[in-house]
Amino acid sequence: MHDVAELAGVSIKTVSNVVNGYPHIRPATRARVEDAIAQLGYQVNISARNLRQGRTGMIGLAVPELSLPYFAELADSVIRAAEGAGLTVLIEQTSAVRERELEVLSGQRRHLTDGLIFSPLDLGPEDTDSFAVDFPMVLLGERVFGAPADHVTMNNVEAARAATQHLIDLGRRRIAVIGAHEGESIGSAALRVRGYREALEAAGLPFDPALIGEAGLWHRSTGAEAMHRMLDSGVEVDAVFALNDALALGALHVLHARRVAVPEQIAVIGFDDIDDAAYSSPTLSTVSPGREEIARTAVELLVARIAGGSEALPYQQVVADYSIVVRESTAGVGAAPLVAGLSGSGGA
Amino acid sequence: MHDVAELAGVSIKTVSNVVNGYPHIRPATRARVEDAIAQLGYQVNISARNLRQGRTGMIGLAVPELSLPYFAELADSVIRAAEGAGLTVLIEQTSAVRERELEVLSGQRRHLTDGLIFSPLDLGPEDTDSFAVDFPMVLLGERVFGAPADHVTMNNVEAARAATQHLIDLGRRRIAVIGAHEGESIGSAALRVRGYREALEAAGLPFDPALIGEAGLWHRSTGAEAMHRMLDSGVEVDAVFALNDALALGALHVLHARRVAVPEQIAVIGFDDIDDAAYSSPTLSTVSPGREEIARTAVELLVARIAGGSEALPYQQVVADYSIVVRESTAGVGAAPLVAGLSGSGGA
Repeated sequence: MHDVAELAGVSIKTVSNVVNGYPHIRPATRARVEDAIAQLGYQVNISARNLRQGRTGMIGLAVPELSLPYFAELADSVIRAAEGAGLTVLIEQTSAVRERELEVLSGQRRHLTDGLIFSPLDLGPEDTDSFAVDFPMVLLGERVFGAPADHVTMNNVEAARAATQHLIDLGRRRIAVIGAHEGESIGSAALRVRGYREALEAAGLPFDPALIGEAGLWHRSTGAEAMHRMLDSGVEVDAVFALNDALALGALHVLHARRVAVPEQIAVIGFDDIDDAAYSSPTLSTVSPGREEIARTAVELLVARIAGGSEALPYQQVVADYSIVVRESTAGVGAAPLVAGLSGSGGA
Repeated sequence: MHDVAELAGVSIKTVSNVVNGYPHIRPATRARVEDAIAQLGYQVNISARNLRQGRTGMIGLAVPELSLPYFAELADSVIRAAEGAGLTVLIEQTSAVRERELEVLSGQRRHLTDGLIFSPLDLGPEDTDSFAVDFPMVLLGERVFGAPADHVTMNNVEAARAATQHLIDLGRRRIAVIGAHEGESIGSAALRVRGYREALEAAGLPFDPALIGEAGLWHRSTGAEAMHRMLDSGVEVDAVFALNDALALGALHVLHARRVAVPEQIAVIGFDDIDDAAYSSPTLSTVSPGREEIARTAVELLVARIAGGSEALPYQQVVADYSIVVRESTAGVGAAPLVAGLSGSGGA
């Protein structure tokens, strides 16, 4: 380690920080240290280090449902980010069941791992106290804000406004939403509908409740059902903002089956940029919510929290950048894939 | 428990077997016991039972890649099956890396769980010795046969033959394969290509190596690339058997982009019946390999193995039933979804 520090021209502490995966190291410094490590063939004995520090070398990841492509791809991204820090990820599925989400927080299983990345889907603001846990934890998602934990989230309102604005820019005026959750004031659905309404308002377009399509879980099947109901209602529609890609793919399926031309008659945009969005027919325009960045940041924050003890650092909230990915379902066949409207606000 | 046995008219041992999730209980008996349990409000205290028996109440599931929809959906099915037995599932991703697959078997993490369901993708027949572990384990997949462990698999050769036969029945004669792994003699690719060749041979059709499209990992992207190469080669093709659905969806994407009519010019069938197959445009004909049955059987075998100790029972090999699901990509638009050719061979 001394040799690495000398060769890289940094302190031993810096080498240690890089090796232990601390965030907030300047990329150039990190690169110098990593080069020196590679040149000298320096190897961290992860198992020995864990043993010495009373750690397991494992972190937990609790997500609602792996059959939702967004969470399967998020898990994959977290696993890859954790690998870089020498950590194995154990994944738990909560099925968005309240009891199981509380179990994840109860700590009964937490001695197995050094820390937890947790994306709740049923717990809400009234459960903030339950999030005061005595182990390192990073929260994901839009259900709980202000909990005593690091939190990585996406800019739902602004991204939804940008997605809606993209449809308005194409001249669409009768923009339906698919995937709303009536009566909910928190969570992704509420935030994305808020962004949609803000975009309408900014463009001077009226808000029409008949254009709001409800859906329960955000699957292809529920998206298909909501699209059918919307078309059957006879309401005039020239665009659809589906609150996630699975819903959008279900809607595309119905539009295809009912011989509605996409995007000529109805343009469609989703949210998530799952792998499938680039391969559907037509390919799906969508919001890329920065999944890789969310996963990487969550792992970095958790690693710092594990290293620093649970009270050492102030809690951070990081908002990932998003972008609008324009594909055939809004721009038409033959359109080159285009990433537009890059925006977002990082920081604590 | 005594009351339950009396009400159900069975022995206490039978109640215990049902409660502990043993397989091989007659469905009618299981239903009677479950009814009695419901009537009497009998509750198993799972945590107390686990503690008494020195168990954790958790099982491990190790799969190659969660971003492959088949494995994400398999994980979901295993989790739901395990729930019924009061077990929590901890999932590990091996990324099909040999070292990580050996780590899964090494037992270093195995004290965390009562047993393991393991789907290897890199280890092979030469590693049979590594599978002789001292904890309860059930193997999935087509890489390793004859290992000292329970094994649940699908009937790859027969199912692939049926998929190919479906294309032949439609009058197709120039059937391409997408997803082959040249030089491999084991694993899903080799077995499915064998089934394809058997179907050609049975129909008196020649085998043409120019119709075999290679692909590395079975993703949409690799399927798209293989389809491009096949079309660019100028070889005559009137049907595609993609060795999994992700490859098939990538191929459909390319056929759509290149204005090739599916199924009129080229019919396409996949393998796996992932959720997406029912929602693509056109919807995808495919082989349903009995994923739910595989998951349920794997959990049942593992539960029995945990209960019985690792040497109590002879090792079992179970082959799940499969079926051919006919959708638009072979039958054309307007075709009603049809499940045909139900077959398979269960048993030890």
